[in-house]
Amino acid sequence: MSPISTEALSPSIDHLISKRSKSRTFRHFGLADLEGAPADFKPHPKPLSLSFGKPNEQYFPIDKITVDVDNYPFQKTLFPNDILEGNSITIQRNGESLQEIGIDEALQYGEVNGLPAFRDFLLKFTEKVNKPNYHDWDLIPTNGSGDGLNKAADAILDPNDVILLEEFTFIPFTNAIRNVGAIPVPTKLNFDKGGDFNVEYLQDLLENWHQLNPNLKKPKALYLIPTCQNPTGLTHSYQTREKIYELAQIHDFIIIEDDPYGYLTLPPVSKPDLANIKDFDISVDEYLANHLNHSYLKLDTHGRVLRLETLSKVFAPGLRLGFIVGHSNVIKSIRGYSNIVTRAPSGTSQLIFTNIVTKKFGGVDGYLQWILKMRLAYIHRRNVLIHSIITSKAYESNYLSIINCDSGMFAGIKLNFPQGTDNVEKLKLLNFKFLQYGVNVVLGFKMAVDLDFSHSNANFLRICFAAAENDLELQEAGSRLSNAVFEFFQNDLQF
Amino acid sequence: MSPISTEALSPSIDHLISKRSKSRTFRHFGLADLEGAPADFKPHPKPLSLSFGKPNEQYFPIDKITVDVDNYPFQKTLFPNDILEGNSITIQRNGESLQEIGIDEALQYGEVNGLPAFRDFLLKFTEKVNKPNYHDWDLIPTNGSGDGLNKAADAILDPNDVILLEEFTFIPFTNAIRNVGAIPVPTKLNFDKGGDFNVEYLQDLLENWHQLNPNLKKPKALYLIPTCQNPTGLTHSYQTREKIYELAQIHDFIIIEDDPYGYLTLPPVSKPDLANIKDFDISVDEYLANHLNHSYLKLDTHGRVLRLETLSKVFAPGLRLGFIVGHSNVIKSIRGYSNIVTRAPSGTSQLIFTNIVTKKFGGVDGYLQWILKMRLAYIHRRNVLIHSIITSKAYESNYLSIINCDSGMFAGIKLNFPQGTDNVEKLKLLNFKFLQYGVNVVLGFKMAVDLDFSHSNANFLRICFAAAENDLELQEAGSRLSNAVFEFFQNDLQF
Repeated sequence: MSPISTEALSPSIDHLISKRSKSRTFRHFGLADLEGAPADFKPHPKPLSLSFGKPNEQYFPIDKITVDVDNYPFQKTLFPNDILEGNSITIQRNGESLQEIGIDEALQYGEVNGLPAFRDFLLKFTEKVNKPNYHDWDLIPTNGSGDGLNKAADAILDPNDVILLEEFTFIPFTNAIRNVGAIPVPTKLNFDKGGDFNVEYLQDLLENWHQLNPNLKKPKALYLIPTCQNPTGLTHSYQTREKIYELAQIHDFIIIEDDPYGYLTLPPVSKPDLANIKDFDISVDEYLANHLNHSYLKLDTHGRVLRLETLSKVFAPGLRLGFIVGHSNVIKSIRGYSNIVTRAPSGTSQLIFTNIVTKKFGGVDGYLQWILKMRLAYIHRRNVLIHSIITSKAYESNYLSIINCDSGMFAGIKLNFPQGTDNVEKLKLLNFKFLQYGVNVVLGFKMAVDLDFSHSNANFLRICFAAAENDLELQEAGSRLSNAVFEFFQNDLQF
Repeated sequence: MSPISTEALSPSIDHLISKRSKSRTFRHFGLADLEGAPADFKPHPKPLSLSFGKPNEQYFPIDKITVDVDNYPFQKTLFPNDILEGNSITIQRNGESLQEIGIDEALQYGEVNGLPAFRDFLLKFTEKVNKPNYHDWDLIPTNGSGDGLNKAADAILDPNDVILLEEFTFIPFTNAIRNVGAIPVPTKLNFDKGGDFNVEYLQDLLENWHQLNPNLKKPKALYLIPTCQNPTGLTHSYQTREKIYELAQIHDFIIIEDDPYGYLTLPPVSKPDLANIKDFDISVDEYLANHLNHSYLKLDTHGRVLRLETLSKVFAPGLRLGFIVGHSNVIKSIRGYSNIVTRAPSGTSQLIFTNIVTKKFGGVDGYLQWILKMRLAYIHRRNVLIHSIITSKAYESNYLSIINCDSGMFAGIKLNFPQGTDNVEKLKLLNFKFLQYGVNVVLGFKMAVDLDFSHSNANFLRICFAAAENDLELQEAGSRLSNAVFEFFQNDLQF
C-alpha cells in the first residue's frame, strides 16, 4: 500500500500536540497587508525595500571561503593510502547552483526552515533513507539534538502530562521534560541475550495504567533511543519496533525516536586488523537494505513518530545542526516555537555542511558513503577496545560481560556481581578503582530515570570508543578497565 | 568611586529573577563524584576517557579553512582605493594561540559560555566599551538577539508579571513575553524635537501604578531600545538614561537594554559625497569618548541592567551570534536555561567571527575600527536616502518630516496629517500608494504594543537604509516614497 495522507484518518494526532504550543500567538510587523485595496490599485512590478532591518550583503566582510576536505576520517592513521591532495571546495559570495549555499546567503538572516539547499538535502536524505509511511510529513532543522529534544518536549507535553522513557536513558532530556512541567516515568529494558526493550512490561503497564498509576494521566509520549540505546548499547529488534508502534496506535501516544548514531551499524566484534580495515566496506545499497535499522518513521502510518537526528556524530558536533522529522502539524508547532527560542540555525554551519556534502561528497549517496567511511573507523575502534576487554583475565573469569556493542559508539558492560550485591554501592566503589587505574567511564545508575525502579539492573557501565586519541589509547583504556575489575573482584568487591 | 561588588548591597536583585528559572533543576551523569573515597585512594595522574560521547576530532572531515577578508564593507563601490589583495586568514585544525579558535575546537562540543577565545574577546570588548559600574557582572553568548530576548524573558518574567515597553517597539519580543505568560504594558515616547523617551509619563505611571492599574502587579522590567529606537529612530539622551536608571532603583525593576545597532553613530544629515566619504572618519578614542551613546550598563551600580548585543548588524546576521551582559546571578539563570534550549552557539560561527577579528582586524581595537568602517558606509547610505527625501516636493510642502536618523539603520518618518485624521486608516491607504510607486516600508502602527494607547502617535513610517543594493536604488526608493506622499496629500489623503 502506498503512503496516504493522514488527513483521511480519524482520529488525527492533533490532540497530542501541547496546549501551550497550540495557544501560542504571534505578532509580525513587516508583512504586506493587501486587504481593502482601492479598486484601481496596481502594485509596482519591481518594488524597492526600505522595510526590513536586513543589512545588504556587501556589509559582510567575507569574500571567499576555501575548505580543505579530508577523504576519510582518521585519514593519516587509519587510511593513509586514501589521502587526496588538493581535495578542497571554494565558496564564493554567490552559490553556483541551487544545491550550494553562497557566503552572502549564509551570512544573511535565514528562516527557521533552514536555507533552501540545506533543507533540500535533508528532505532528499529522509526520502531515501527513512521515508515515513504517510504523505503529509515535514521536517525542520534544529541546533542539534539537545535543542531538538527540548522542542519535542514543548510540542507535545503540557504540565502533568506523562512521558515514558527507557529506564536508563539520556538523562539531560529529563531536564527538558521537567522544564515543561511534565512527568517522566521509566519503563523496563530487557538485558538478556543482547538485550532489547521489554515490550511485555510496556504492554502490561499501558493496559493496567489506571490501576498501577491512579494519580497519573495516561502517557502521551514514549521516548526511545532504539539503536545503540544510551547508555546500555542495546538495539530494538524489528519485531519490537512493530509491537511498540502497535501499542502506540492502541494507546494513542507519540513516539519520540532519538537516533544520534544509529547510522553506525557495526558487525560482530573481531580481532582488530588495521591492514584490512576495508574488508568491512559495503555498498550504499547493501547498507540500506541489510544493515541500517528500520526507523520507527518507516512504520508510521498516522504521523505519531517524531524522529530526532543530529549531524553531531556523523559529521561534527560544533556545527550545532540536527533535524526533526514528523507529522506536518507537529513540525508546524515546532516551527512556531523555533521562531521564539532559537530562530534559524547558524548560516555558517549550514554553509560548511551543505557545500561539503553537495560539492565534495556528492549529495545524498555521497553523504551515505561518508557515513560508511565513518562506520569503518568506528568498527575498527570498537574492535580495538572490546578486543582488549574480552581477552582480559576479568572477562575470562566472567567478572564482566558485554551487553551489546553492535552499533553506535557505546558498549554496555555488565558487572557480574553475585546475587544480592548492592549494585550502586559496589559500582561507586569500583569507580575509585577505575580512577586509580586511570580510566573514566559512565556508571549505569547515573543514567537511571528512577533509581528505585532500576536498582537491580544498575550493574553496568557505559563505555565509549569515540573520543580516544588512537588505537594504543583505546587498548590501554580497555586494559585499565579490565585490570581494575579483576582486582576488585579478586579482592571480594573491596577497594 | 570605583566599581564595587553588589554582594555588599541590600537588597540584591535576586528577587527579580523568575521563579521558573530559580526552581529549575538539572541532572547530569558524567561528572566525577569523589565523595566517600577510600582512605588509600589515589587517582591516576593521566586518566583515559571512555566516558563522554564526544567524537575524536579526527572524525571531522575538515583539515583547513581559508577565508578571504574584505578590508572595507562595500569595498568595490564605496572604498575602491582600499582593496587589499591577498587579505586572507588560514585556520588549521589547531589554533596557534589562545586568541584563535582551531577547527578541531570549533567542530567539537562546546560550552554555553562560548569557546574560550570568543568569550575572552567579548569580555575584553565589554570591559573597554560598556563596562558596568559594579564588580560581579558576567556575560553569556546567545544565538543572536532574538534568542537573547527570549532568554531575558525567561530569566526575569513569571506568569502575570508586568513588563513595560516603549509604546512602539520590536514587536516580536511580545511573542516571547506572552510565551512566558507575562503582560506587556506600553509607556510613552515623546516625538517632539528629535524625540526621546517620555520620562515624566513613566514616573507618573510608576508612582501611581496601583491606582492606574489596580489589577496588575508593579512592573518587574522595562524593555528599552535606547539608541535608534526601533521603529521611531529616536535616541535617549544621557539625562533620560540617568533619570530612567534612577526610577529603576526607586521602583525596583530590571532594565532590558536592547542595542543591536547603537554602534552606528551617525552625524547630522548632509549631501552625499562619495568621493569624500572618509571625511567622517574618526579615531577609536574619539568614537568612544564623544560619539558612542552611554550604555545603561555604565550607569548600573546594582546589577539591574541586562544588555543585549548582537553581531548581526555590525558583522553578519547569519552567524547567529550575540551576547548578554548583566549581573552574574542573572547570567547564571540564563546559563541554566541555555543548557536546556539552545546549548552552545555554533562553533563554526564562533570560529569565523573570532579568527577574523583577532587574526585580521586586530582584537578589540581592530573590531572597533571595523565598526567605524561600517559606520562610514551607513553614514553615506543614510545621507543618500534622507537627502533624496528632504529635497523632495513632499518635504518642501511639509507633508512629511524626519523624526530622527542620527544612529543605526532606521529613520522614523512622520506624516504631517491634519489634526483629527485617523492615522491608521490613512497610513493603510497611503501604503497602497507606496506599493503602487514601488517602495516597501514599515507602517508605525504595526509596531504598537497597544494601538488604542498609541493611535494618536501612529502617524509615522519606519524606513531602513541597510538593505538596498546601491546608492541609485536608495535614491530611487526615497523618490518613490516622497512622490507617493506628495500625490497622496495633493489628492486630499485619498488614493
